Amino acid sequence: MEFNEFLNNFSTSVKKAHSIYIYPHVSADGDTLGSTLALKKYFDSIDKESVILIEEVFPSTYKFMYDEDSFEFYDQNEHDKADLHISVDTGDINRLGKRKEAFKGETINIDHHKTNTNYAKENYVDYHASSSGEIIYEMLIGLGCTLTKEIAVYLYVAISTDTGGFRYSNTNENCFKIASELIKFNINISDLSKKVFETNSIEKTLLMGKAIEKLRFFFDSRVAVVLFRKEEYLTLNANEEMFDGIIQIPRNIEGVIVAAVIRQSLDDTVKVNLRSNDDQVDVSKIAFDNNGGGHKRAAGYTSNENMDDTLEKLLHDIEKQLK
Amino acid sequence: MEFNEFLNNFSTSVKKAHSIYIYPHVSADGDTLGSTLALKKYFDSIDKESVILIEEVFPSTYKFMYDEDSFEFYDQNEHDKADLHISVDTGDINRLGKRKEAFKGETINIDHHKTNTNYAKENYVDYHASSSGEIIYEMLIGLGCTLTKEIAVYLYVAISTDTGGFRYSNTNENCFKIASELIKFNINISDLSKKVFETNSIEKTLLMGKAIEKLRFFFDSRVAVVLFRKEEYLTLNANEEMFDGIIQIPRNIEGVIVAAVIRQSLDDTVKVNLRSNDDQVDVSKIAFDNNGGGHKRAAGYTSNENMDDTLEKLLHDIEKQLK
Repeated sequence: MEFNEFLNNFSTSVKKAHSIYIYPHVSADGDTLGSTLALKKYFDSIDKESVILIEEVFPSTYKFMYDEDSFEFYDQNEHDKADLHISVDTGDINRLGKRKEAFKGETINIDHHKTNTNYAKENYVDYHASSSGEIIYEMLIGLGCTLTKEIAVYLYVAISTDTGGFRYSNTNENCFKIASELIKFNINISDLSKKVFETNSIEKTLLMGKAIEKLRFFFDSRVAVVLFRKEEYLTLNANEEMFDGIIQIPRNIEGVIVAAVIRQSLDDTVKVNLRSNDDQVDVSKIAFDNNGGGHKRAAGYTSNENMDDTLEKLLHDIEKQLK
Repeated sequence: MEFNEFLNNFSTSVKKAHSIYIYPHVSADGDTLGSTLALKKYFDSIDKESVILIEEVFPSTYKFMYDEDSFEFYDQNEHDKADLHISVDTGDINRLGKRKEAFKGETINIDHHKTNTNYAKENYVDYHASSSGEIIYEMLIGLGCTLTKEIAVYLYVAISTDTGGFRYSNTNENCFKIASELIKFNINISDLSKKVFETNSIEKTLLMGKAIEKLRFFFDSRVAVVLFRKEEYLTLNANEEMFDGIIQIPRNIEGVIVAAVIRQSLDDTVKVNLRSNDDQVDVSKIAFDNNGGGHKRAAGYTSNENMDDTLEKLLHDIEKQLK
């Protein structure tokens, strides 16, 4: 759908609605939270009743954006009053978690994920956009919304986090242009960046230290592997989410072509996370051979072997592709 | 001086010159290297003889920008041929190292540091600019230079590194605007960002791991200290430069107000590096009391005591300011 056509439909739907529920996806990130908040503040500015429905603990990284007036925790018995439902940054209906029960009737789906399943009555998916924040910015401008410093902060967080701070390959011309507009509202870039990019919990920091301690190098340090046994991280109070970034440690080492984290989970299954820094190794091939998935540069699988055998087999699989 | 007036003078000086030496500062960073390279490529495009003079090993982070035709290692006996000398990103003449002997006669100083000492015959210092890269971009546009992908890469590296990847407080509207122009040349943002921001040597990685291992917390984890004894890092092949970023580890921990690294140097002196994350503690006061220096949020000093006494005294000094 054309952007302008969508914007007209959107505007009409909003005018008709008496009350709106806005839906970020589960495991909320900066883009879904910043985008839904910006939209909520727009509805406030035109005196349209709305609320953002969430169902999980608010992520600690973004707690500075939490406000009681904007968010409500989903309650099946309570939340059946809206006559318009808008999801943002949510690729498929299951990413709405329990709230998918409420997402019915007049529904709008605004997203930038190529894999979006168009599950709503009205769907606007622009996968050329860096982030949902970029789409919401263009929508608010198109709707004649007067941006405020508050909205600028939300959109900046949305766009900057989804592009990894303007570092990922989805970083585009438009998101730099939008950033140059948002910064005019005197938003504190260094303070925001510190909060969203640089702050780690004590537990995460100690887990990173342990990961470095467990680093092993193979094939002239072209392959770096972190081997994590359960007993090594249990005492660190690490949760599953904290393991997400650990692969960056071996991946970011100079000269490393393949990085791996092999981890014994709480249920004793052995999980393998892989990254390739070079086209010579396609880690998705290794993952597919082990009934896993992914793409050339990032893939993973669950191993049926113990830690040591998993490592040995993995090194063998990598060696076949190393030049 | 007005930018346009400077640009006219610059253009006249360049026209008159037969051969130009371009000077990055010592301990070269992305801004000074990217900026001097962009200028060098401009001179190439107008068939003006020029070379970038350096005197140190090329920094490994930026080795992908090194090319034999652009750089020459300074040799006092060899390099006395230019009739125009241009320093970029260099706040004072001593930052030219040994090359200051050659920086004589027709000299131009282009910089964005507020503390610039205007040591050249012609000085253009714009301290509102995020980086020297931002100034060079505006100069090349003003001079009618046709930008190329190569120049776009150099300027992107200059601007993005000096703003910490658009995260520091010097990040401004113009540098986002320029980034939106440079990205049109199809530069590989994710590849460049990985090279300049995310790659660590094995030694640096292991040093970071050791720093996390040596973390100690005080005052309900509002103070985090890394204590490094000489014997703990000697085996890691760490050099002085690698210690620069270590203070970020305690500083980036959630809830930490004061971060410190106390390190026994190779010559046994005890060095203290301090960061404050909150206005309630001004670390420069502590540094000044110990004959050191710095500002509110970042300061340091050399201690006359041993490691343990240094820590004890530091905690006492911090406690006085903690609320």
